[in-house]
Amino acid sequence: MYKYDYLFDFTKNVFLKMGCSEHNSAIIAEVFLAAELRGHASHGMIRIKDYFQLWKAKRINTDPNVKIVHESPSTAVVDGDNAVGMVAARRSMEIAIEKAKNAGTGWVATRNSNHFGIAGYYSMMALKHDMIGICLTNANPLVAPTFSISRMMGTNPIAVAIPALKYPPFVADFATTPVARGKLAVAEKKGEKVPFGYVQDKDGLPSDDPAILKQGGSMVTLGGDRVHGSHKGFCLSSIVDIFSAVFSGANFGPFVPPSVAYLPVLDKKVGEGTGHFFGAMRIDAFQPAGDFKAKMDEWIETFRLAKPAKDQKSILIPGDPEREAEERIRKEGISLVPAIKNDLVEIAGELGIDFL
Amino acid sequence: MYKYDYLFDFTKNVFLKMGCSEHNSAIIAEVFLAAELRGHASHGMIRIKDYFQLWKAKRINTDPNVKIVHESPSTAVVDGDNAVGMVAARRSMEIAIEKAKNAGTGWVATRNSNHFGIAGYYSMMALKHDMIGICLTNANPLVAPTFSISRMMGTNPIAVAIPALKYPPFVADFATTPVARGKLAVAEKKGEKVPFGYVQDKDGLPSDDPAILKQGGSMVTLGGDRVHGSHKGFCLSSIVDIFSAVFSGANFGPFVPPSVAYLPVLDKKVGEGTGHFFGAMRIDAFQPAGDFKAKMDEWIETFRLAKPAKDQKSILIPGDPEREAEERIRKEGISLVPAIKNDLVEIAGELGIDFL
Repeated sequence: MYKYDYLFDFTKNVFLKMGCSEHNSAIIAEVFLAAELRGHASHGMIRIKDYFQLWKAKRINTDPNVKIVHESPSTAVVDGDNAVGMVAARRSMEIAIEKAKNAGTGWVATRNSNHFGIAGYYSMMALKHDMIGICLTNANPLVAPTFSISRMMGTNPIAVAIPALKYPPFVADFATTPVARGKLAVAEKKGEKVPFGYVQDKDGLPSDDPAILKQGGSMVTLGGDRVHGSHKGFCLSSIVDIFSAVFSGANFGPFVPPSVAYLPVLDKKVGEGTGHFFGAMRIDAFQPAGDFKAKMDEWIETFRLAKPAKDQKSILIPGDPEREAEERIRKEGISLVPAIKNDLVEIAGELGIDFL
Repeated sequence: MYKYDYLFDFTKNVFLKMGCSEHNSAIIAEVFLAAELRGHASHGMIRIKDYFQLWKAKRINTDPNVKIVHESPSTAVVDGDNAVGMVAARRSMEIAIEKAKNAGTGWVATRNSNHFGIAGYYSMMALKHDMIGICLTNANPLVAPTFSISRMMGTNPIAVAIPALKYPPFVADFATTPVARGKLAVAEKKGEKVPFGYVQDKDGLPSDDPAILKQGGSMVTLGGDRVHGSHKGFCLSSIVDIFSAVFSGANFGPFVPPSVAYLPVLDKKVGEGTGHFFGAMRIDAFQPAGDFKAKMDEWIETFRLAKPAKDQKSILIPGDPEREAEERIRKEGISLVPAIKNDLVEIAGELGIDFL
């Protein structure tokens, strides 16, 4: 088990060695560790290798000039200058929050960025300002639109964080597919099947083989198939893609650049880098802040009283599983499987630092 | 088959007779007919009876004072004064558009309203202003959160309309459940089963019986079950409910008032009436309008090229089915089943007007 501080300092040092500033390295480390704490290890330490290899391939800028290129009182478009995604994303959400202070709400579309870790982190930045936070991003194409076999979209997540008063905040952070890409990779490594409704084969027929993605298959959108509403999942994925990329001038859909160096740079560009979208809304732009948060408490209490289905204990409020994970992991520490540990030892060696 | 103009004039006259102004009656008729044209008859003429009976029961206000009760440069909260939902909703979206003209974006939460017809109508109001339109609403509780058997939420739809240049706009308008309530009612009337994954029985076990809602059953959220991501559908439904009701001060979740007079007024209130949420975003708050719309054309062209799955013709862009329905229905006319026609004849008789 690793202590938070040890992994934070290590991660920060990795990015310092790659040329990131002190400030930016700390931000990047914070987002990686937030993924570990919230139980989303798929977006945590395992990904450091991807960023390291993109940097070695000179495909990512560790000394970026992240700047506003277009704005209105409540909006901005930010150019991320090909930064590590966390750096562009964190700055963009700060701008959204600044805009909201003056205009009531702030909305920022970001282009020329890269994979930014967990969307929930940025949405939660709004909470301490008594604001609602929203974060969307597009991602590498793995998902086929309903009726299609073409990988056109990423798992395009949506994160929304809403403050309450005496209860922890409502935090929804979910991919617009039935399951995250990471879960397929785990099943594949274990040689296990997955439930039907996650992936389809190269002809668009249902499959339970997580390795089908390597044989021309694709993931499907939330809903799974047309009968169960996959066209609604396609609407959601599309909205995330358009808000992230068409609003900002980033690459959309199948043109989102790979977030790993072992995949080649795409031939065709329709914009700059990966795109994100951020929103911050002052709660007192709608209701006095105390009233709003007390009403959220009432909402949470009401839904906690929902009668559990047979053999279920209770319903979950969005954010519960991640908060429970965080409480446990802060106490017990962060575990890394040997393969990830080995990767980090290797990266440390190349950069002339230590990883124990 | 009925001509559009005949049904428009009839509907307008019904609401004039109920005491609505000329202006408001025309708005209400336009929204009812928009549902018919777009192929969503479930939200069209069949619903006039519900509004008529609410009015007879003095549960709806046909002479409302819809007004802003709280605002910031980019936001407003509107009190609908218990208006027919279309009247409160149309005015709220106008305010969102006005706010966006000055602040870049406009966001309006509306309380003390009623069922407003199709969400897509209001999102599409933004298009002619070169804006993106967004509309959410909560609704009568029929849907259980994941792991629960309690009907806590409506089918809480999301509508997003985005303009393109040479192509028709992108218009997504979908309930956050696998299927609309209306489709269950149709299956029930025909004595047919529905696919598993739409409803559950009183214990939370899967059911294929659309009549199960009358036996303590409930609808499920988009995703269908936990394995297939119903918790993500629950996140979506919750976000729609909170934006519509907690932002505005309307009733949330299980306390949303019935949209039909044959169900009693609820004992407990946690706010005023039904809640909606509207957004308008100037496209030139992000990109020059011409660039944005040309990029949307490119997005649409890209997705139209997605390779169809086996036995499928092509993928659909959100808005395609409704636009195709509208083209056909404008040509052929609007058909009403005998039961609806009889209802309208009866309403006409009570109001001293004609329906042929």
